[in-house]
Amino acid sequence: MTEADAADDPTGFTALESEVRSYSRAWPVVFDRAQGSTVYAEDGTAYLDFFAGAGSLNYGHNEPRLKQVLVDYLMDDRMVHTLDMLTTARREFLETFRDHVLAPRGLDHKVVFPGPGGANAVEAALKLARKVTGRESVINFTNAFHGMTLGALSVTGNSMKRGGAGIPLVHATPMPYDDYFDGDVPDFVYLERLLEDGGSGLNEPAAVIVETVQGEGGINAARAEWLRGLADLCKRHGILLILDDIQMGCGRTGGFFSFEEAGIVPDIICLSKSISGYGLPMALTLVRPDLDIWEPGEHNGTFRGFAPAFATASEALRLFWSDDTLEKETLRKGAFIEAHFNSLVARYGDDQMVAKGRGLARGLQLSDGELADRVTTEAFERGLLLETSGPRGEVVKLLPPLTITDDELQRGLKILSESVGAVLTPLAPYTKEDA
Amino acid sequence: MTEADAADDPTGFTALESEVRSYSRAWPVVFDRAQGSTVYAEDGTAYLDFFAGAGSLNYGHNEPRLKQVLVDYLMDDRMVHTLDMLTTARREFLETFRDHVLAPRGLDHKVVFPGPGGANAVEAALKLARKVTGRESVINFTNAFHGMTLGALSVTGNSMKRGGAGIPLVHATPMPYDDYFDGDVPDFVYLERLLEDGGSGLNEPAAVIVETVQGEGGINAARAEWLRGLADLCKRHGILLILDDIQMGCGRTGGFFSFEEAGIVPDIICLSKSISGYGLPMALTLVRPDLDIWEPGEHNGTFRGFAPAFATASEALRLFWSDDTLEKETLRKGAFIEAHFNSLVARYGDDQMVAKGRGLARGLQLSDGELADRVTTEAFERGLLLETSGPRGEVVKLLPPLTITDDELQRGLKILSESVGAVLTPLAPYTKEDA
Amino acid sequence: MTEADAADDPTGFTALESEVRSYSRAWPVVFDRAQGSTVYAEDGTAYLDFFAGAGSLNYGHNEPRLKQVLVDYLMDDRMVHTLDMLTTARREFLETFRDHVLAPRGLDHKVVFPGPGGANAVEAALKLARKVTGRESVINFTNAFHGMTLGALSVTGNSMKRGGAGIPLVHATPMPYDDYFDGDVPDFVYLERLLEDGGSGLNEPAAVIVETVQGEGGINAARAEWLRGLADLCKRHGILLILDDIQMGCGRTGGFFSFEEAGIVPDIICLSKSISGYGLPMALTLVRPDLDIWEPGEHNGTFRGFAPAFATASEALRLFWSDDTLEKETLRKGAFIEAHFNSLVARYGDDQMVAKGRGLARGLQLSDGELADRVTTEAFERGLLLETSGPRGEVVKLLPPLTITDDELQRGLKILSESVGAVLTPLAPYTKEDA
Amino acid sequence: MTEADAADDPTGFTALESEVRSYSRAWPVVFDRAQGSTVYAEDGTAYLDFFAGAGSLNYGHNEPRLKQVLVDYLMDDRMVHTLDMLTTARREFLETFRDHVLAPRGLDHKVVFPGPGGANAVEAALKLARKVTGRESVINFTNAFHGMTLGALSVTGNSMKRGGAGIPLVHATPMPYDDYFDGDVPDFVYLERLLEDGGSGLNEPAAVIVETVQGEGGINAARAEWLRGLADLCKRHGILLILDDIQMGCGRTGGFFSFEEAGIVPDIICLSKSISGYGLPMALTLVRPDLDIWEPGEHNGTFRGFAPAFATASEALRLFWSDDTLEKETLRKGAFIEAHFNSLVARYGDDQMVAKGRGLARGLQLSDGELADRVTTEAFERGLLLETSGPRGEVVKLLPPLTITDDELQRGLKILSESVGAVLTPLAPYTKEDA
Repeated sequence: MTEADAADDPTGFTALESEVRSYSRAWPVVFDRAQGSTVYAEDGTAYLDFFAGAGSLNYGHNEPRLKQVLVDYLMDDRMVHTLDMLTTARREFLETFRDHVLAPRGLDHKVVFPGPGGANAVEAALKLARKVTGRESVINFTNAFHGMTLGALSVTGNSMKRGGAGIPLVHATPMPYDDYFDGDVPDFVYLERLLEDGGSGLNEPAAVIVETVQGEGGINAARAEWLRGLADLCKRHGILLILDDIQMGCGRTGGFFSFEEAGIVPDIICLSKSISGYGLPMALTLVRPDLDIWEPGEHNGTFRGFAPAFATASEALRLFWSDDTLEKETLRKGAFIEAHFNSLVARYGDDQMVAKGRGLARGLQLSDGELADRVTTEAFERGLLLETSGPRGEVVKLLPPLTITDDELQRGLKILSESVGAVLTPLAPYTKEDA
Repeated sequence: MTEADAADDPTGFTALESEVRSYSRAWPVVFDRAQGSTVYAEDGTAYLDFFAGAGSLNYGHNEPRLKQVLVDYLMDDRMVHTLDMLTTARREFLETFRDHVLAPRGLDHKVVFPGPGGANAVEAALKLARKVTGRESVINFTNAFHGMTLGALSVTGNSMKRGGAGIPLVHATPMPYDDYFDGDVPDFVYLERLLEDGGSGLNEPAAVIVETVQGEGGINAARAEWLRGLADLCKRHGILLILDDIQMGCGRTGGFFSFEEAGIVPDIICLSKSISGYGLPMALTLVRPDLDIWEPGEHNGTFRGFAPAFATASEALRLFWSDDTLEKETLRKGAFIEAHFNSLVARYGDDQMVAKGRGLARGLQLSDGELADRVTTEAFERGLLLETSGPRGEVVKLLPPLTITDDELQRGLKILSESVGAVLTPLAPYTKEDA
Repeated sequence: MTEADAADDPTGFTALESEVRSYSRAWPVVFDRAQGSTVYAEDGTAYLDFFAGAGSLNYGHNEPRLKQVLVDYLMDDRMVHTLDMLTTARREFLETFRDHVLAPRGLDHKVVFPGPGGANAVEAALKLARKVTGRESVINFTNAFHGMTLGALSVTGNSMKRGGAGIPLVHATPMPYDDYFDGDVPDFVYLERLLEDGGSGLNEPAAVIVETVQGEGGINAARAEWLRGLADLCKRHGILLILDDIQMGCGRTGGFFSFEEAGIVPDIICLSKSISGYGLPMALTLVRPDLDIWEPGEHNGTFRGFAPAFATASEALRLFWSDDTLEKETLRKGAFIEAHFNSLVARYGDDQMVAKGRGLARGLQLSDGELADRVTTEAFERGLLLETSGPRGEVVKLLPPLTITDDELQRGLKILSESVGAVLTPLAPYTKEDA
Repeated sequence: MTEADAADDPTGFTALESEVRSYSRAWPVVFDRAQGSTVYAEDGTAYLDFFAGAGSLNYGHNEPRLKQVLVDYLMDDRMVHTLDMLTTARREFLETFRDHVLAPRGLDHKVVFPGPGGANAVEAALKLARKVTGRESVINFTNAFHGMTLGALSVTGNSMKRGGAGIPLVHATPMPYDDYFDGDVPDFVYLERLLEDGGSGLNEPAAVIVETVQGEGGINAARAEWLRGLADLCKRHGILLILDDIQMGCGRTGGFFSFEEAGIVPDIICLSKSISGYGLPMALTLVRPDLDIWEPGEHNGTFRGFAPAFATASEALRLFWSDDTLEKETLRKGAFIEAHFNSLVARYGDDQMVAKGRGLARGLQLSDGELADRVTTEAFERGLLLETSGPRGEVVKLLPPLTITDDELQRGLKILSESVGAVLTPLAPYTKEDA
């Protein structure tokens, strides 16, 4: 590398890594360590993390008790790579998951280990739904995000990401997500009509795939009644309901599953991101027992048995899901952000800003992506990591660790307020003359 | 669980985990620890491991020096989950990979971190090839295996796994792999003719995707000249060559890349399995610099920056790829297995047995899958882990750690011989009367 | 054939022809001759024809002046089968079509002869729209019918017919046709929103394909303002508008093109059915001159130059489209049917019956297909040919020849009234006691 | 049109008709009448027709006895447009087809009227094969041509025509046609191997679709033993055999069906082109009785009951297929062309020329399409109509009417010889000095 190149590529990454990388463009520093809600650059600069691995670090970075379990596991030379071999770690996880998650919620789903990431969980869900029903078509929702492998991408909304497939993505039909028409159109009127009408031209769907809160889609939170309506519609039409809880599960919205509040029971559930508790690659597809009709090996994969993740996952369930402390804290902190957002909206006006979200999945929707980028850049310069989401990147997205302290939360929101203030102009104060 | 159920489900897994699991059926014990080439069940029984995580553990289980790096990394609270953020661990890996792998082999490919597993590497490769060429079709080979996500599955041969997709898998056309017709048909005669003939009905392909040795397909090793012929054909027709080195790379056949021996330079290379050196989920897609035309974020994924894997991967490259010691050892041990196989074939006759493979990817092809299953079951009972592969499961597959000791290798081969002896009948000894 | 078989198969067709035939099941007599609006069975029984070849006989059966032209053409040994060779008949048609149809309406579309039937016109339209735009997706409408070849079928709504394809029909997304929600939802709210939202998951469409009145779909007549809104939306989003005027063109709704009333100019227009004027196989795809980017021979077909049809088509245009007499008569007769329908609805109540349609495309929608079948069976027994349409076959469909006499029309409506009376019960007469 | 435009567009077609037209470019005169094997331009110039409507005019233009039947049919006001209504003409055709075609050949196929053209026959065949087998994939052959609608196009080879589809054509896999490798590769070795190998990646096919002689593909005539091998392979693997006899049926190669010589019985047979005997749009799909599992109306179409074509078709069967006179004459004339071709090849050398074909489907393959175009242009200027075919248009294609007189045939071949002579240079005469 010449000196000139070095100037263009100060971190040395550009010459070696593909142009496809994205976060590194927003945050052009080299990170090294992390603890709890704080990330440290190699020069020691600390950043408060309201990004949390895009929801993969609900319990924060390097939680000490989970770290101990992980290091012990490794030091004891317990098996690391196990595919679907029976292991002590796998059994511990299955039993802990049953005892702390499934059984208390009255669920009897069987566990598929579909591969290491969320897209694997979605691919497995779609495969199984098609096998069970003998149909190929799937209903997805506007602004859905389910992953970047071909099957998962076909039910994802973003046109830039879809375009990356290089082949027409077919077999899925998008339907309006909750509040897509700002309340002007009754829920499910279109989907229900198409399903009932033998002449509608809609291919009979195997499944509906849905997120309760669309994280990548812009922190769009579906109402509980909309989710109930959807579950009911699926039942009436013999369509399987796949709930993608990859980003919103593991407590992000309060309860372990984000759909608990709505009181529904999905046929198939996808989990990943925070399930290991430590940011380790792990994913689950949970299937109603009567749907578990796979032949042995019909779906498989090399890294579906990464056993250290089972160990931390088991410990995380014991630590955080033995009672409802975390759930209550998440709701309390979420309400705190909501109140803060409301004061921002009052200050800047709802023409400039919409507050969105549920639990600790929160978004501040601005007028366009460029404004949102400017806010997150301002925040980064002030030591706060925030990403944007939404179809035009217009939503400043807050996914702090659920374990964030109140101090950290307040500090982060203060930075956010300052960053917004650096970009937007508040409404003129209301004075007597306005009256 | 009632007592009766418990009898049916002695390990307790059946009630909790999906029927899709497969290895656990062949090896019905609960494993716990592992070290080097040995795996231990929870009751302490030791098994010699000629399976090595389906090629993910080329340096054995829990290699002590890698373990130290990994534990230090964790103890120092260095970042675990990083997406595509710039990190010290990522930089270290990129530079080490350049210095120990790419540069010495005259390669200047750029690195994509496509996601945690091999299927992600394949999905990213297919996407990019389609984007670069503007074509959608791909050529794959008979008995290829490239993964279980929809894109990867579409270029995979196995009909049971393909059937699991639940939708027609299109956009790929299978071509005969090397020696598919036992030498009766000239190489590439069909593919080349279809490409040259504007009336052939073959959709113009974006890419050819190939393995140098088909592991899942039955340890079919392509000849170097066949690979060179393929690379040449791709060049002449403007088709990208994707080399899936997920199972055969990282030294499995001798050199770091399995295609080195053929002297070809693929346009896109997929790596995973052993790249972390420790069985951690990690994958790479290497792309020729001029093909790196992606927009930022056009391909992404949650677990594509699992940084502890970068740390162990860097150390593994330094430990094993600073000189050619490992390569030479692999070739030597491979030749040892080959000689042993040849004596087996001589004993049992080539009607009953065909020896296959290259380096430390070896297969003993029997007449059918049932015989191969009986051999691996016998081996398991004698303390040796072996899987089968091939379209009918007819190949006993040997993928021992590259770091296996000579003693272990001989011990394993002895068990294999005994297991074969328990299943097959040797040829009648050649006597004077036969002449 | 045994005697017993003969009893089961009185007409002798069952033994020879596929079970796929349908009209012959509703009308189990053997027809022989036809003249104007009357069809004669071989035993001489006369049937009044309100079916008119599913809209292919707008000028009635065997119109004498067209017959003379056709017979003269044949007797003069003029060319019959011409592919796309230049012929005197082809030139005569092109010039007559320009002078009597295109030029007076300010259109300068170029003529494609896509093949002998309507489905060919649709296939050619879809191909060209995809070539022009480089996109593959198409928007169709609920209850659309565009034909039975694979491309045309993919934009057709009927699930039974779609199922016949035997492969998933993809590349088209159904949108609600006018009044699909009985006015509850604003026009195009869903389509427009999906098009504007880069995260909607809708593949960017090459074209919208639409009928002004859905004949097979149940005589659903779109309002002129809805059609205008659609044309406007297409223009704003750079989507081509394909108007399928196969059944509703050639004067069925009044003007030569059924879209004239709305004042729109489609990019591509499909014509067939009555274009020859004599029931001869002929079809046209009309394309805006700037869209005519085909290579020679890129679309072709054996019967796209059936020249006797050009001769009768030219004469039909001269006879019926030199002035607005036919158009006015069609509207007058249409209004007459409408008035009759209204009295029926008044008599039977709008719970039992809905009057639908425009011009001489009229439908009486009953509660279900079984009732509609009973009405058409009663009508057949009274000497009137009527078919049903709609997703459940619930609409009694009237497509009399445009040249029907007032006497015939009244006679037919009288039979219809009697047939309805034989099946439905009128409302109780309104008496003082009801008040 | 200005004068300048008129100069560019002397025939006046360019301004009105799409650029997609093709034959009119090779033969830039306006045709008017035709009789037997002769076509007349509007200025009276006569052309000998060795094209015969691309095989649609096997009995020549305007055969007087068929003309009389057609004109009588029209003058008697018998029904013209009948969909699938029962008619006297339909019954007459079905019975005549049974008596003169099916029964004498021991066939009991049921007749589907799939629509007016050959592509409809193919679309219906593919639909039914998929419905019967529940599979979606089809095997087609290199250089196949089956039509231009989406389903038919997907099994067609020509890349320019395929490209016109505008969407990826999937669901078909091309296999080598007979002699594709000039005898270097055993028949079906690839197809059979892929079918037998569960890991081949070939989607299990519903059907194989094949022509006995590929007309558009370059007059490639499959050997009878190859066809038998194919039929046998289909039977062994439970794959339906669809024989597309659209261009080669109705006596073109001698027998009524072109597959008779091979002694095979296809499961589904497609007929069109010459079936009406008069160049009228008509097509048939013949299906084995046990495959006739369609629901009524599952496949339909407006022009599948063009009854005047039934009348001429019936008469043509009676006239030409009551004995074997036509068949013998066709073989005799075919042999005459073959002998003539052989003398041409001897004169010009087999480097420049290959003689191809069977019966009266004959081709002279030159080195490239440009030479073949020059030959047909020379022939046109000498009063002979000839088209080219083959993937590069390199084959001069002879499809004279089967009823051509010996004088006409000799005259045409003389023109062909002269035209070849104007383009190619004969071999140096063999003289003593060469020895």
